[in-house]
Amino acid sequence: MTDPFPPAHPDPLPLTDRTRVRRLPSLQTRERAALHAVLDAGLVAHVAGCVDGLPVVLPVAHARDGDRLLLHGSTGGGLLRLAAAGAPLAVAVTLLDGLVLARSLYDSSMNYRSAVVFGRATPVPDEAKLEALRALSTRLLPGRWDEVRPPTRRELAATLVLALPLDEASVKVSAGPPSDSDDPTPDLDVWAGVLPLRLVVGTPEPAPDAPATVPLPASLAAAAARVEAAAPG
Amino acid sequence: MTDPFPPAHPDPLPLTDRTRVRRLPSLQTRERAALHAVLDAGLVAHVAGCVDGLPVVLPVAHARDGDRLLLHGSTGGGLLRLAAAGAPLAVAVTLLDGLVLARSLYDSSMNYRSAVVFGRATPVPDEAKLEALRALSTRLLPGRWDEVRPPTRRELAATLVLALPLDEASVKVSAGPPSDSDDPTPDLDVWAGVLPLRLVVGTPEPAPDAPATVPLPASLAAAAARVEAAAPG
Repeated sequence: MTDPFPPAHPDPLPLTDRTRVRRLPSLQTRERAALHAVLDAGLVAHVAGCVDGLPVVLPVAHARDGDRLLLHGSTGGGLLRLAAAGAPLAVAVTLLDGLVLARSLYDSSMNYRSAVVFGRATPVPDEAKLEALRALSTRLLPGRWDEVRPPTRRELAATLVLALPLDEASVKVSAGPPSDSDDPTPDLDVWAGVLPLRLVVGTPEPAPDAPATVPLPASLAAAAARVEAAAPG
Repeated sequence: MTDPFPPAHPDPLPLTDRTRVRRLPSLQTRERAALHAVLDAGLVAHVAGCVDGLPVVLPVAHARDGDRLLLHGSTGGGLLRLAAAGAPLAVAVTLLDGLVLARSLYDSSMNYRSAVVFGRATPVPDEAKLEALRALSTRLLPGRWDEVRPPTRRELAATLVLALPLDEASVKVSAGPPSDSDDPTPDLDVWAGVLPLRLVVGTPEPAPDAPATVPLPASLAAAAARVEAAAPG
């Protein structure tokens, strides 16, 4: 599939004090493509900030748009309002891919794709907000943007979209079978392997006030088809 | 199902500056049972802290054990080591339940169950670590603890388990169909409803070195059965 939001920087992600992975550093990848893949696959980001020296964290909808991460919120929100004023952020997107079951608990772990982006965000200005919301909508459910009416001026004014540059980010990917590194002679009578985990969409549930004559739109039909293709075999 | 880790405090969660939900406060619930349900259903927590005034956030495995949240890490980890020394934390567990598709993007949202716990953690002392790891293992995959060998003394020493009291926490639950609150006369020809999302487990993948004679253990068979029961219709 062609990426509708191609990146501008092909160079590897820089290693900084914050992005250098200390625990299992071999799992770190510095490819921007890997960062983009994690951000694009996730539906929710956890945004962390410091308020009066104390940490706060909040789940928000996000979308990558080229070399920036868009974060979506209400203009009334506390942490996002602080972020809009330039407070430093750490934003994590994590995809859980499986439980990794070794022959000991110590070597058991999880398979995951994880990205953390560090930096300061800026509010998307009014004249670019429509395009940013289109990117957000398209990431969450491709095609939906064209099925609904455009946002009104009042709705745009009540919506806060922040853009965080993807300059400083850490990506860690754990995949594959377990290793019994801690056991020179593991008990092979104990089952070991991976229990895959996957987020799937179910059958769409029409709203109570939806006329039965309204067909499922193309965006949802496509999402349902993706699920059937990915259904546990 | 009987809760193997019953709570000690039946009283509602306190409202504090940090736990009071400002955005859509009607979605906040102060029931401890709701907090426990979110923490118990999640497989990964996002732990946020402040390091030199800058936010950091990290995904970690967690488990509720009565009225405390157990966080599992390596003794080498940066943020968790800081947390073990008493640094304030904010820990989020978020479950995504669906895309909520209204007839406008403005009223579209997500269904979710979200909990954020605030406080300072303490390391679980050596003599209680085994029991804490049992709770973690049992939450992630019930029955697995009894299928593998017990941790060695050396493995226990290399494992950090933190306990965060569930004294200050915020719970927000969004469920149900979309409302077109922003549209006095919504276009009923536009499909509206919910696209459910669900984390499911797939078919277990044996490790390459697993003898074909080793049967699937009861813990994994039970997990697979839970999936089939929850499979999209």
